[in-house]
Amino acid sequence: MRKLRMGMIGGGIGSFIGDVHRKASALDGKIELVCGAFSSTAEKSKASGQALLLPEDRYYGSFEEMILKEKELPVDIRMDFVSIVTPNHMHFAPAKLALENGFHVVCDKPLTLTVDEAKRLEDLVKSTGLHFALTHNYPGTPMVKQAKAMVENGDLGKIRKVQVHYLQGWMATAVEDSGNKQAAWRVDPSKSGVGGALGDIGTHAHNMIEYVTGLKVKELAADLGKVGKGRLLDDDGNILLRLENGAKGTMSFSQIAVGEENNFSIRVYGEKGSLEWHQENPNELITRWIDRPKVVYTPNGHELYPKAIAASRIPAGHPEGYLEAFANVYKNFATHVNSSLTTTKIETPDYPTVSEGIRGVQFIHAAVESDKQNAAWVSLG
Amino acid sequence: MRKLRMGMIGGGIGSFIGDVHRKASALDGKIELVCGAFSSTAEKSKASGQALLLPEDRYYGSFEEMILKEKELPVDIRMDFVSIVTPNHMHFAPAKLALENGFHVVCDKPLTLTVDEAKRLEDLVKSTGLHFALTHNYPGTPMVKQAKAMVENGDLGKIRKVQVHYLQGWMATAVEDSGNKQAAWRVDPSKSGVGGALGDIGTHAHNMIEYVTGLKVKELAADLGKVGKGRLLDDDGNILLRLENGAKGTMSFSQIAVGEENNFSIRVYGEKGSLEWHQENPNELITRWIDRPKVVYTPNGHELYPKAIAASRIPAGHPEGYLEAFANVYKNFATHVNSSLTTTKIETPDYPTVSEGIRGVQFIHAAVESDKQNAAWVSLG
Amino acid sequence: MRKLRMGMIGGGIGSFIGDVHRKASALDGKIELVCGAFSSTAEKSKASGQALLLPEDRYYGSFEEMILKEKELPVDIRMDFVSIVTPNHMHFAPAKLALENGFHVVCDKPLTLTVDEAKRLEDLVKSTGLHFALTHNYPGTPMVKQAKAMVENGDLGKIRKVQVHYLQGWMATAVEDSGNKQAAWRVDPSKSGVGGALGDIGTHAHNMIEYVTGLKVKELAADLGKVGKGRLLDDDGNILLRLENGAKGTMSFSQIAVGEENNFSIRVYGEKGSLEWHQENPNELITRWIDRPKVVYTPNGHELYPKAIAASRIPAGHPEGYLEAFANVYKNFATHVNSSLTTTKIETPDYPTVSEGIRGVQFIHAAVESDKQNAAWVSLG
Amino acid sequence: MRKLRMGMIGGGIGSFIGDVHRKASALDGKIELVCGAFSSTAEKSKASGQALLLPEDRYYGSFEEMILKEKELPVDIRMDFVSIVTPNHMHFAPAKLALENGFHVVCDKPLTLTVDEAKRLEDLVKSTGLHFALTHNYPGTPMVKQAKAMVENGDLGKIRKVQVHYLQGWMATAVEDSGNKQAAWRVDPSKSGVGGALGDIGTHAHNMIEYVTGLKVKELAADLGKVGKGRLLDDDGNILLRLENGAKGTMSFSQIAVGEENNFSIRVYGEKGSLEWHQENPNELITRWIDRPKVVYTPNGHELYPKAIAASRIPAGHPEGYLEAFANVYKNFATHVNSSLTTTKIETPDYPTVSEGIRGVQFIHAAVESDKQNAAWVSLG
Repeated sequence: MRKLRMGMIGGGIGSFIGDVHRKASALDGKIELVCGAFSSTAEKSKASGQALLLPEDRYYGSFEEMILKEKELPVDIRMDFVSIVTPNHMHFAPAKLALENGFHVVCDKPLTLTVDEAKRLEDLVKSTGLHFALTHNYPGTPMVKQAKAMVENGDLGKIRKVQVHYLQGWMATAVEDSGNKQAAWRVDPSKSGVGGALGDIGTHAHNMIEYVTGLKVKELAADLGKVGKGRLLDDDGNILLRLENGAKGTMSFSQIAVGEENNFSIRVYGEKGSLEWHQENPNELITRWIDRPKVVYTPNGHELYPKAIAASRIPAGHPEGYLEAFANVYKNFATHVNSSLTTTKIETPDYPTVSEGIRGVQFIHAAVESDKQNAAWVSLG
Repeated sequence: MRKLRMGMIGGGIGSFIGDVHRKASALDGKIELVCGAFSSTAEKSKASGQALLLPEDRYYGSFEEMILKEKELPVDIRMDFVSIVTPNHMHFAPAKLALENGFHVVCDKPLTLTVDEAKRLEDLVKSTGLHFALTHNYPGTPMVKQAKAMVENGDLGKIRKVQVHYLQGWMATAVEDSGNKQAAWRVDPSKSGVGGALGDIGTHAHNMIEYVTGLKVKELAADLGKVGKGRLLDDDGNILLRLENGAKGTMSFSQIAVGEENNFSIRVYGEKGSLEWHQENPNELITRWIDRPKVVYTPNGHELYPKAIAASRIPAGHPEGYLEAFANVYKNFATHVNSSLTTTKIETPDYPTVSEGIRGVQFIHAAVESDKQNAAWVSLG
Repeated sequence: MRKLRMGMIGGGIGSFIGDVHRKASALDGKIELVCGAFSSTAEKSKASGQALLLPEDRYYGSFEEMILKEKELPVDIRMDFVSIVTPNHMHFAPAKLALENGFHVVCDKPLTLTVDEAKRLEDLVKSTGLHFALTHNYPGTPMVKQAKAMVENGDLGKIRKVQVHYLQGWMATAVEDSGNKQAAWRVDPSKSGVGGALGDIGTHAHNMIEYVTGLKVKELAADLGKVGKGRLLDDDGNILLRLENGAKGTMSFSQIAVGEENNFSIRVYGEKGSLEWHQENPNELITRWIDRPKVVYTPNGHELYPKAIAASRIPAGHPEGYLEAFANVYKNFATHVNSSLTTTKIETPDYPTVSEGIRGVQFIHAAVESDKQNAAWVSLG
Repeated sequence: MRKLRMGMIGGGIGSFIGDVHRKASALDGKIELVCGAFSSTAEKSKASGQALLLPEDRYYGSFEEMILKEKELPVDIRMDFVSIVTPNHMHFAPAKLALENGFHVVCDKPLTLTVDEAKRLEDLVKSTGLHFALTHNYPGTPMVKQAKAMVENGDLGKIRKVQVHYLQGWMATAVEDSGNKQAAWRVDPSKSGVGGALGDIGTHAHNMIEYVTGLKVKELAADLGKVGKGRLLDDDGNILLRLENGAKGTMSFSQIAVGEENNFSIRVYGEKGSLEWHQENPNELITRWIDRPKVVYTPNGHELYPKAIAASRIPAGHPEGYLEAFANVYKNFATHVNSSLTTTKIETPDYPTVSEGIRGVQFIHAAVESDKQNAAWVSLG
């Protein structure tokens, strides 16, 4: 076991998500940021590298430069993996180049702009044997892990109904016109791809359903909204879902839901029990039962499954949040990569991979297609 | 002002909803139960009449008998109105007969089995000048009245998105086969009509949207479920909504959502603010704003609109619930009928009327039609 | 079984608590208001009687007149019991006179101004065999009944710790000087007695502890506050408690806790489990356990004790509130009185009686005494 | 600005609080763990050092060795400060030695066993000009900072009442006898000092009151409990409080409150408004007002004071928890120490210092003294 060395692509100082990745990777003392290509210009990249207290020979003007130069460094110095935290259109190229040059990859979601690109990355991962983590952070939450384990163990019985919503209000006005960089690229199809809020938060909602229930979304009927004036991409959506086992459900997501901060919630109903989880109060898993009163699970509390316990760092009642869940993706990735350096291989890594990435891109394209057809049913993949 | 005299149709002892109507009508001391045709058999009706401490000449073997005999009684003794609390298929005939014989009507929802019947009742109400209340009880809740007033006064700005769910679990198993009378008639199309959960709770959800937003649902796409084995009517449903002003939304309802008791919730998003209300904790109205923190209103608390204040009986912090909201329908109906006996007419009565009844029946039929067409868009009315 | 006839003393139109008693007694159809001495002047009493639609020979100018005249009426017409809803100093005299003349009594709390008066009433109740209900309404709440039953059945093990607070803010400013009648008499020692907030809400808090735990408060150390300028009676208080079994606890109450509406909460900790209840969200009983996760009980939900089930009128998820809890006192009193008219006697009536009244007055006096001695320990009774 | 180098004293692998300090100090990339004396034996210290991936010449057999040897290292290599995470009785000696040898100090609470020791450390801090942080982590929470700022800015008006409780259940059984190391030293007066739960969590509660209100606790009356059989130190306590401005309040704390995880809550009532915060759901600050409805603040939400904004790392709605609050102490300490290395001095550092440490020790001793005198009033300091 040693500290893994991380090279960051994108995420210059001032970037929300770059900062999140840095904190999440630092939390558990298993990963060290050693280099970065933080921006599209060498000058900005340098400024970020300096602010991050990196040595001056370890920040680079482009991801290509970083990947190729790091490869030349001695094996005990060069980075072990890249963390890609750029806008959507800049995921594929650096992920591909990193894999081709022997570096493991952590990549933000949605994986790529097209399903074809996503599948090409999957092929590369398979052929190189390298590890690939997609940063769906919410499955890193202890109570989400408990939820998945309960379904997996049959506690709820056959799943009959799901309901998920992911509601934000930060794009309720035209923030993209007033200097909000993240908003600016998210409303730009050349950078975001065919989905707007769909790609940003819809994919989280879709991933959460498939993660918790273990069931694939088979088909969907999507009614998307472009509520902000002049927007080319969806900023709101309502979707009917049918899962592979016959269960039905709804998804609602929005970035124009005024006043909502990050209201991401899921409800899953089975034959024997049901569960409810809210991201804004993540340390509770509410369960309801056909024959007994409501039971509320908490991290490191009683009667948890092992994966839920493993995902929590501190005693019960000491709240963990967004960064800790995010850090679980990094921690589990680091453990997995470390295990591959030794003889104790981990068979099933506990973090989202390139496969989840493909599903997410399929979801985006299916929803856009359905919406074009006035919410006709479209199947995923 | 005098106490109104009520005759009840249906609602014999042991009936959930009959008891609710009796308690709700008694609460404010404005209405007195004077007679009843409580059951389909004279014997059972008598047993109920006795248990309810009615004089023996005031319980009847059928609604026809009650209406015709009461009409013969002196004007200061005979009932003023009927309260119809029978299964759905038994709403139309007694309502019609009561109106034809000069009695005001309070009637449970859904109004009738068909839109045609509903419109015939509307015609009768208009031609007789009698009053007709439909017992959608939830609009009687103080915080729902506040929600409506806020939208009406433009506090939220133009409405962009709605989300409503009404989740119950009491029919998650085949309770209709084990002696649950209410379940038994609700799964029977000859008694419930074309909608199952749709008629029972979907209509509440639909009414809530139109009540709070003041906007009509223009079209819907419904994916209904008949989850319980052998059921002929829906017990679960997921619906995409489009409102007349272009707002979109989702509705999800269920009676197989295991463990849910009566989880009826609405969220409404406008350009400037949004609101959220949960029936199971009805004494809070949560509002969120584009430029200030979350504000939570409470009954008889600060900064309420007059109709919200009028709907509350006790000081802030003293919770009111389901029966009080229900009682508000009766109280406002009684006030209205009383006003019609005097010169001080009330122009716009504050309770749901036959018009809301028509909308509800249109909603049920549109949803069933859409579901038949694999969730194609169908317009309401 | 017949409807009981109630005569009200105090509670004229406009009075908060008179209206509450009327609604609570009407809810279940077991009690009928037949007469009243609603005010200290005959004129005001008449106005209330008319507004309440009483016949003109059934409202009286004084409680003495009412008690003596009703006694003359035929047995099947005259009132069965009085409901005393006057300020504190006017409880003893009418209760005494009613008992002496053969009428059962429902009386607001605190029972009397002095312990001696309270005990004299107890003697009268015993010697006459009449029934006496003290309207501590909160024990009428289904989830409070469940709490008591859980402790009684040993589910929590030996009780070790209690915590209760009752926080209101309505007297945070000098409302007694601006026409608030209730505030005016509550700050007046000649009407309230030696306790201010102590008598109004402290007694509820004390009663709740003894009701739920089944344990007597043995001694207390009270630090009272007279926060409002010029007030002669406490409007705030903090108390250390020691129960008869060695358990300890705190009580905090206030009527100057700005912004609090009616925040009455209790926590009880035993060796094996603990419970928590909040009056403002009364339909949840939160329990925590030494060896399993948090369990939340709801009225008419799963795994309830019989008394909790009996206290709820409507299906799970349909909230009941303050009036319903209050009505349970009246309902159980009516059932009890009715039972005493027949051969099926109820041995242990399920409502607070004159004994709880004595405890409350002892509590007030002990707290005032302790406060005078700079929070020295003083024992109760 | 550079990364500060931290040497840890105590906190070997397996220690709850050592791990918390490591994660908290790592989160923001401003501090690096470079050395440690992790345990009382050289062997265990080595094992921890290795597990923490430290170079082998940087873990030491004792704190004395570490401090003296590090002092010999070149200035750009040796540690900048020590982090003391040992049991209470081992705070004073290493803190004193570190200060005497020119190292800044971060130290766990309570500061020392006696007030005298605490004051000696204060003297040393003053005479050396070094920086000293006491890890009261809860004031690092964004919403606690907002609470303090609101009081400081007079939003609530003059403070009249406070209520704080800190309830845990982990010592409800004799865990000290079954291998729980933390429990074992906490029940041992030679390691914990005169206070048990008092020192562990009572000090947090006391600090929170003084931090948020800006008022000193003037005197207290404490009724402590030694509930666990054979315990020599308190595991439960109830305290009456009087603040320097005349406000009153209660504190209740417990480690035998079965089922409670880390229920630390504060309520503060002023003349114009009040606030409420719960550690288990730390991302809400609930405020109530004399003339407007309840307002709920959230991190990075609307209308926050600068210090609340500065304490949050991620956008509104992305929950932060215990570790982030803890990390704020380290982050602010690091910023402060860094500022002292340059010309831009920070005048008032935003973290608890040795002064808060003295207050905490005074609180413990006053409470123990009061309890000995049957809850007589005792003043603090």
